[in-house]
Amino acid sequence: MPTFHTRRLVEFSDTDMAGIVHFSNFFRFMEAAEHAYLRACGLSVLGGWEGETITFPRVSATCDYVKPARFEETLDIEVTVEHIGRTSVRYAFTFRRQGEEIARGKLTTVLCRMRPDHALEAMPFPEALRQRLERGPADEGA
Amino acid sequence: MPTFHTRRLVEFSDTDMAGIVHFSNFFRFMEAAEHAYLRACGLSVLGGWEGETITFPRVSATCDYVKPARFEETLDIEVTVEHIGRTSVRYAFTFRRQGEEIARGKLTTVLCRMRPDHALEAMPFPEALRQRLERGPADEGA
Amino acid sequence: MPTFHTRRLVEFSDTDMAGIVHFSNFFRFMEAAEHAYLRACGLSVLGGWEGETITFPRVSATCDYVKPARFEETLDIEVTVEHIGRTSVRYAFTFRRQGEEIARGKLTTVLCRMRPDHALEAMPFPEALRQRLERGPADEGA
Amino acid sequence: MPTFHTRRLVEFSDTDMAGIVHFSNFFRFMEAAEHAYLRACGLSVLGGWEGETITFPRVSATCDYVKPARFEETLDIEVTVEHIGRTSVRYAFTFRRQGEEIARGKLTTVLCRMRPDHALEAMPFPEALRQRLERGPADEGA
Repeated sequence: MPTFHTRRLVEFSDTDMAGIVHFSNFFRFMEAAEHAYLRACGLSVLGGWEGETITFPRVSATCDYVKPARFEETLDIEVTVEHIGRTSVRYAFTFRRQGEEIARGKLTTVLCRMRPDHALEAMPFPEALRQRLERGPADEGA
Repeated sequence: MPTFHTRRLVEFSDTDMAGIVHFSNFFRFMEAAEHAYLRACGLSVLGGWEGETITFPRVSATCDYVKPARFEETLDIEVTVEHIGRTSVRYAFTFRRQGEEIARGKLTTVLCRMRPDHALEAMPFPEALRQRLERGPADEGA
Repeated sequence: MPTFHTRRLVEFSDTDMAGIVHFSNFFRFMEAAEHAYLRACGLSVLGGWEGETITFPRVSATCDYVKPARFEETLDIEVTVEHIGRTSVRYAFTFRRQGEEIARGKLTTVLCRMRPDHALEAMPFPEALRQRLERGPADEGA
Repeated sequence: MPTFHTRRLVEFSDTDMAGIVHFSNFFRFMEAAEHAYLRACGLSVLGGWEGETITFPRVSATCDYVKPARFEETLDIEVTVEHIGRTSVRYAFTFRRQGEEIARGKLTTVLCRMRPDHALEAMPFPEALRQRLERGPADEGA
């Protein structure tokens, strides 16, 4: 399964009165890294696939906090596609600052088609979409 | 023009590394107070009016910061409908902590109908809606 | 172990373009509910205990999303102190809307003293503090 | 006075249920652009200057919204140092998407030294610091 790297500069508004990145923001960071991965695969979290609008709502999110991150630090975020099920994708993320682990987390998302009434309906992965996610970004493959 | 009061407890995630409420959050607080005002008038910021979906996107927002606000402080927010134009409403907000002024701001919003394609279109205030906003909440009128 | 209930109205700024509460905000909601629990126990997440400044940084956070939550819905949040270890507390949260489960999550926090240089140091629970957390709010006991 | 450009990709968590960037997030974007400007000048919003810790709390913030911005759009943010007073700096920001104006805003900040008790005290601009801000980034000067 492919691995992908992206970076993020900690902003002032990411911090809290403890002087560190507020723990909830790591979930925003994971989501943005997931979307960067999808873009690198030529996809979008809210995109089109064979005439349908598809999206990936989350069903589960976890994060373990190892060290605090601070304002103006640059975090390296490693994104790994850990598992692709019939309708779901699980990503694992590792946050590092100059090689040192800061946090690690997971997001499980479900592939959904958007129906004309905007309701979401889980759908099995089309084979070509699954392959696109499994193969990963063209320029980071083996 | 009516005046309305609501209160808000500062949460940990509202603060930043300076130990105070991040300045951008006062805009979230103003919007929540505006929506509490609309609810008190029997309206919603995204509601229905005579068969149409109406909403109030913002065109301008300002805030002046007088004193910092901190975690677990309770802020009193005074909402005043300052001006209702042909299609717009301007609200003024004053934040106080035990009577002491913390900040004051303004939001200007425009009444829009949502078209079937979800695009927004400014619309003149129906007279009954204007009166509802001008009169204010039933239980806080003069 | 005690159970505590608090409520929260979903605000416009809690939502995302999918029209639902952004998943990261459930972590803000859990933290605010934890702090409401601590206040109900006569404590604060950043408080004093026998001359020391104590605080509870988080080491782990998880959430499972069952149904989406939307603007102006009121969520009931049930807080349960699930486990108190030597230095840590684990809370479980269930979000419900009119009895229907929306999400459930956990936060694990560690009791720390703040040293004079503002660094944090894990400390074993003083017996009286443990009892305060185990007993829960005076007005919700069995 | 110098002008500086930075770019920002709109993230999913920046949007609201209206499908556009939540208006409060433009203030976070302005602040991040201000900090990028300060870094480009070799400064930090929370930095050191001749042995003192200096910082720039905001006293006023405004934004006018011209067009909505949406997920995965890249915004160009132009930062202009509009005025440097005895203790204050006023920045103007213009947000554009492919040349089209999206929003414009202002932030007024005050130079403060942090006293040993962490209280903030406004201080007049040291001449060298004023010149650094007036001159702007080395690689974008006239």
